[in-house]
Amino acid sequence: MKLTHIEHIGIAVKNLTDSISYYENVLGLKCYAIEEVKDQKVKTAFFKIGETKIELLESTDPEGPIGKFIEKKGEGIHHLAFAVNKIESAIEEVDSKGIKLIDKKARKGAEGLDIAFLHPKSTGGVLTELCENKNK
Amino acid sequence: MKLTHIEHIGIAVKNLTDSISYYENVLGLKCYAIEEVKDQKVKTAFFKIGETKIELLESTDPEGPIGKFIEKKGEGIHHLAFAVNKIESAIEEVDSKGIKLIDKKARKGAEGLDIAFLHPKSTGGVLTELCENKNK
Repeated sequence: MKLTHIEHIGIAVKNLTDSISYYENVLGLKCYAIEEVKDQKVKTAFFKIGETKIELLESTDPEGPIGKFIEKKGEGIHHLAFAVNKIESAIEEVDSKGIKLIDKKARKGAEGLDIAFLHPKSTGGVLTELCENKNK
Repeated sequence: MKLTHIEHIGIAVKNLTDSISYYENVLGLKCYAIEEVKDQKVKTAFFKIGETKIELLESTDPEGPIGKFIEKKGEGIHHLAFAVNKIESAIEEVDSKGIKLIDKKARKGAEGLDIAFLHPKSTGGVLTELCENKNK
């Protein structure tokens, strides 16, 4: 498997508007897109920094994954996403190495990427996402 | 303030050897340096992916910051570090905007970088580090 770069860092926030204000007005980044991912029960805001994105995630449902995360742990970094060249073979490879998968098959994530999550029990507590941008 | 890229992502681990094995053998990254930062009571291992580093942090003292973090939250992502062009002016700027600082002055971190941490209470729960590499 070839990881090329950090595709994005997912950050769980309580209020997207407040958090966008912090990233724009304090850190000087620019929000370039807001997208709702209904499947994941989140509204997301994207910032680009170098080759990496910051993806802020506000829950649209307390029972969704981000709603539960914030209830349990509070706001903070939620997941780390690596860009891979071929997601199908990357999933096969980590599966063959005994890593517990959340997604056994790639599915569509924000921005039309093909994504799959590895379970934090197998990755030292880091919820890890693999992403391939097939639209490039 | 101009953030140029994600300098590194700090990940708290219980056992550096086991975690290096995961990042090398599962994710295919290569550990290029191991360094003890006595001041922070950690042993660190570095991996490069694109323009970003992954910094694994194993505590050398249960009373150190990583020891306490793991006791409270378990293994996982500990902090997010942004590269800035001029750390002194970046610190002044965030301070002037009312952000709570852990380091009011830059200090030396791993790999000889000049670093300063912002308090997660002011940054939406994300322990945030600013770094400047003056050795470039």
